[in-house]
Amino acid sequence: MKFGGTSVADLSKIRNVAKRVKQEADAGNQVSVFVSAMAGTTDQLVGWVEEISPLHDAREYDTVVSAGEQITAGLLALTLQDLGVPARSWLGWQIPVRTNQVHSAARIEEIGTEEVVKRMEDGVVCIMAGFQGISEDNRITTLGRGGTDTSAVALAAALGADRCDIYTDVEGVYTADPRIVPGARKLEKVTYEEMLEMASLGAKVLQTRSVAMAMNHKVRVQVLSSFTNKPGTMVVDEDEIVEKQVVSGIAYAKNEAKVTLVGVKNTPGIASDIFLLLADGNINVDMIIQNETEDGRKTDLTFTVVANDIDKAKDILAGAQNIDFDTVLTDINVVKISVIGVGMRSHAGVAATMFKTLADKGINIQVISTSEIKISVLIEAEYTELAVRALHTAYGLDAA
Amino acid sequence: MKFGGTSVADLSKIRNVAKRVKQEADAGNQVSVFVSAMAGTTDQLVGWVEEISPLHDAREYDTVVSAGEQITAGLLALTLQDLGVPARSWLGWQIPVRTNQVHSAARIEEIGTEEVVKRMEDGVVCIMAGFQGISEDNRITTLGRGGTDTSAVALAAALGADRCDIYTDVEGVYTADPRIVPGARKLEKVTYEEMLEMASLGAKVLQTRSVAMAMNHKVRVQVLSSFTNKPGTMVVDEDEIVEKQVVSGIAYAKNEAKVTLVGVKNTPGIASDIFLLLADGNINVDMIIQNETEDGRKTDLTFTVVANDIDKAKDILAGAQNIDFDTVLTDINVVKISVIGVGMRSHAGVAATMFKTLADKGINIQVISTSEIKISVLIEAEYTELAVRALHTAYGLDAA
Repeated sequence: MKFGGTSVADLSKIRNVAKRVKQEADAGNQVSVFVSAMAGTTDQLVGWVEEISPLHDAREYDTVVSAGEQITAGLLALTLQDLGVPARSWLGWQIPVRTNQVHSAARIEEIGTEEVVKRMEDGVVCIMAGFQGISEDNRITTLGRGGTDTSAVALAAALGADRCDIYTDVEGVYTADPRIVPGARKLEKVTYEEMLEMASLGAKVLQTRSVAMAMNHKVRVQVLSSFTNKPGTMVVDEDEIVEKQVVSGIAYAKNEAKVTLVGVKNTPGIASDIFLLLADGNINVDMIIQNETEDGRKTDLTFTVVANDIDKAKDILAGAQNIDFDTVLTDINVVKISVIGVGMRSHAGVAATMFKTLADKGINIQVISTSEIKISVLIEAEYTELAVRALHTAYGLDAA
Repeated sequence: MKFGGTSVADLSKIRNVAKRVKQEADAGNQVSVFVSAMAGTTDQLVGWVEEISPLHDAREYDTVVSAGEQITAGLLALTLQDLGVPARSWLGWQIPVRTNQVHSAARIEEIGTEEVVKRMEDGVVCIMAGFQGISEDNRITTLGRGGTDTSAVALAAALGADRCDIYTDVEGVYTADPRIVPGARKLEKVTYEEMLEMASLGAKVLQTRSVAMAMNHKVRVQVLSSFTNKPGTMVVDEDEIVEKQVVSGIAYAKNEAKVTLVGVKNTPGIASDIFLLLADGNINVDMIIQNETEDGRKTDLTFTVVANDIDKAKDILAGAQNIDFDTVLTDINVVKISVIGVGMRSHAGVAATMFKTLADKGINIQVISTSEIKISVLIEAEYTELAVRALHTAYGLDAA
């Protein structure tokens, strides 16, 4: 079980979480629980670090910030004990969750389960501080924002757990954002691949890395609300889903920015030069299109980056000696809309439906990118709600 | 260097601390620094634990509460780095500070200094989270309130440090509480033994355990203010003090309570039975007097305990099967006043001066206890200020 920051935001919410954990334990299940920091705590700690040292040492950042989960883990263990449930807390270095040394964005390399398994067999509920691990040089690492999802899935994989329940403030994975689409439905099941696309395309339910890890280790993940008693959405292997939807959901991502290099001198390898340069600057490029001019000697190159990276990307391009172009245009007033579904593989016409639906609403498509199970388009941001609703209807996803 | 909670209460105070540490490092000194939690943090964490689980598991308490020092240690390391001083933080389990398993009141057994020494020789300032250690079973322990003083002295001893500077919110050790005695003087030097008596008799400058540890390992401790730039008081071996004062200071302790067992059946070993019983209940008994009645068959037994323990003490005595007494009287409206000085050993008449001074002011002495270097009396609480001032004058301690 994993509980996020809003689920453990104060002592009464922690008591609520303890009751849910007790239910599982009382049902005869062996349970271990990952907790995030109490909502607001991480922000306060990060705020202090950034105020004191804008260019901070990530190792010290991790030392400070990991204290948040430490506090919650101890408090939840105490609450369970008070309910008569044997429980104890474990910090990242105690479990241990061994990670690489990339502080603030560490990757889990190995989880020691020996002692945890022993305790679980003794009937102890193991409360784990999420988001944190320990590096080879004995220092605390953190996994980056949302890392507690990853912690939980990684332990579930290491234990061969029957299920990994991710408790959050939504009731599951929806066909579209319910705040935008009133007819959005909660999915009973969704495949790892779809969830992965949804996570990376703007659905904030699960962190991308945790889904990838679940997929690699076939961990059955359930996304559900800690504030209601309803079943959530199971994220499972494709084999478990008998009747596959052509399209399972519509996602949108607002933190996109478009960059256009106008009049790039069209020499062999020029695109690779440009994108290597951006990669060296740690800028992820997402959608890319290239248009040749009539004479073929110059080309326009358009691509998208995360909106926060836009200034950095411009600086890198402006300072590039080996790239010859006329001008660079940027636009942060864009949104990426995606339709996602594993059924797409065996159904033709999904893209055509998307393009026609948007065209019918008078929405201009700026960039297109596709994968095996999704189609994404970049459109003007003000059409976001209109586009998502129209597509939701067009693919037959509206609740009856 | 050790900085308490008020010295690191917010980011600007932490910056102030960093500047002091930098001064020492710039002067060519190898420095390690122990920090407490930011003022208020420990109280909040303890409050949460007590609200969630009144009879809490001390191991989880330690996990939660130790997060406070962890945060400060990271923040101070970052602040120093920002000032260009190489620094890194160490938590109790990283140093490691090995303790016994008495959670919440653990005793330090050993401090690993190998890595710290190496780093200090490399010019790194080592910032240590105070108050915490690690037990044999790999869990976080805390040393009890004020434990950061002990952490600092223990490391100074292990390193063979030239000095252990304890920064606090007072400028040093005074001949009496300056809030009560306007003419109180800051002592330039004080002996370990005097400091030990002062600490246990109510002067809140240093924690008793830390003074005992300093005395055992001959660590030269300086008590000084983190808010001024004045030298503080050196706590040193008696040999270092050439001209010894007969009386170095007057202390008072308000958290005392008096218990009188009236009409105890006077059988051999009865006193030992009573005090063993209280000791089993973890109640420390301080001053003791016993008066026989005329016929010698019954006796009245009076002793003092910490005020917080008074109800527990009454319960234990009331429930005792093997002790026969008529009634138990308690009084929390008392104060213990002490005069302290190593010079007392070679000077007669110190006690007589105390009794006469109090008698002249019309103050009734209820209980007396003495040691080689102090005389304590229990008096009615409302005479506290009057008594302390009169004694301060009587022993010639007033500033000229």
